Amino acid sequence: MDLKTKLNKLDLDLPEVSIPGGNYTSVNIRGNVAYVAIQFPIHNGEFQYQGRLGDQVSTENGYKAMQLCGLNVLAQIANKIGFDQVLGLNHIDIYYRAVSQWDESPKVANGASDLFVNVLEEKGTHSRAIFGVENLPRNFSVGLTSSWTLF
Amino acid sequence: MDLKTKLNKLDLDLPEVSIPGGNYTSVNIRGNVAYVAIQFPIHNGEFQYQGRLGDQVSTENGYKAMQLCGLNVLAQIANKIGFDQVLGLNHIDIYYRAVSQWDESPKVANGASDLFVNVLEEKGTHSRAIFGVENLPRNFSVGLTSSWTLF
Amino acid sequence: MDLKTKLNKLDLDLPEVSIPGGNYTSVNIRGNVAYVAIQFPIHNGEFQYQGRLGDQVSTENGYKAMQLCGLNVLAQIANKIGFDQVLGLNHIDIYYRAVSQWDESPKVANGASDLFVNVLEEKGTHSRAIFGVENLPRNFSVGLTSSWTLF
Repeated sequence: MDLKTKLNKLDLDLPEVSIPGGNYTSVNIRGNVAYVAIQFPIHNGEFQYQGRLGDQVSTENGYKAMQLCGLNVLAQIANKIGFDQVLGLNHIDIYYRAVSQWDESPKVANGASDLFVNVLEEKGTHSRAIFGVENLPRNFSVGLTSSWTLF
Repeated sequence: MDLKTKLNKLDLDLPEVSIPGGNYTSVNIRGNVAYVAIQFPIHNGEFQYQGRLGDQVSTENGYKAMQLCGLNVLAQIANKIGFDQVLGLNHIDIYYRAVSQWDESPKVANGASDLFVNVLEEKGTHSRAIFGVENLPRNFSVGLTSSWTLF
Repeated sequence: MDLKTKLNKLDLDLPEVSIPGGNYTSVNIRGNVAYVAIQFPIHNGEFQYQGRLGDQVSTENGYKAMQLCGLNVLAQIANKIGFDQVLGLNHIDIYYRAVSQWDESPKVANGASDLFVNVLEEKGTHSRAIFGVENLPRNFSVGLTSSWTLF
């Protein structure tokens, strides 16, 4: 089953590939590793899920925000490489902004982790780090960086 | 000398391997690199060293907290791979939470760095980054992410 | 054209290689990847650009601070490896400290990105992540971690 069919079964689709906000490349291939620049919850150019978790953004919406970051990663890989050439996802770094008493970051991070595992199966297995940052560009609640091993 | 003997000489031992707090894997092997998910100061299931450095957690205890994170990394590698198959540690990212006037993070980070170098010698040589985050899951004071090259 | 000539044309030069502030190595080579420890805006031993962006450090000076971090990375690679052996830059992580309403981090990050691309051309192409942290050692406004693929 191809990527779009799998996503459609989950009632999801690939967003438009977002354009780098600076002098870098969204997917940088060196040797057999693809490094994907930080992806934010942007849907077809529209900034979504801005604010802090536990305040403007609920845990449930944080999950959707991380899922949208993950969909942007999938769109970048599909656009630049294609998943036939991908051995698998290596690791993801997840950045979140939250009010101090909020402590649901593992649940929110699963928005990306579930997506990768459900859509890519063994290729989507990954390690991860989560940490709460003070600021992200454009007041985004979350961000996601990843690297992938290619055949 | 094997890992446990070396640790015992330092009056240390391997904690129980901690279980992932979400839909990810603690050690993800892709090609010849092992990516280890963020490890926290957890000893046999017990959360330790919670709070902020410079307030609830002293610099001396921060050193021990980072050492415990490092021991959890060693436990993960020992459990999944074994050190005979390890060429060496690549890089560690260290996250800490502190009150604003506290500036002893390099000392605290050495809790992990000293462990890796003392126990693994050349295999434990590494580069590192340290930065102070706003939030970590479960109010932990520190966290540690690493990657390793395998033979 | 060699590195120093290119830098001189941009009215820049390589700073002295900074010494690790702990028990780690500034450039760690494993297999065909060089991991470079976090670099700060230090010029020949002098700490520069301390404070928060949007307050003590302007956006223009933040750009220069990131450029200086990048020059320190170049100095580390030149000192340990030499650019003839470098296939290219993989990815950079950029940490910044700012007041909450300040939102110019992509511009500031270009201080490093422009340097790598202008000086190294295709070898300097990279992906990047930017996130705003709460604390950095020695009150620095920015920091930069990178990895490089070697031939």
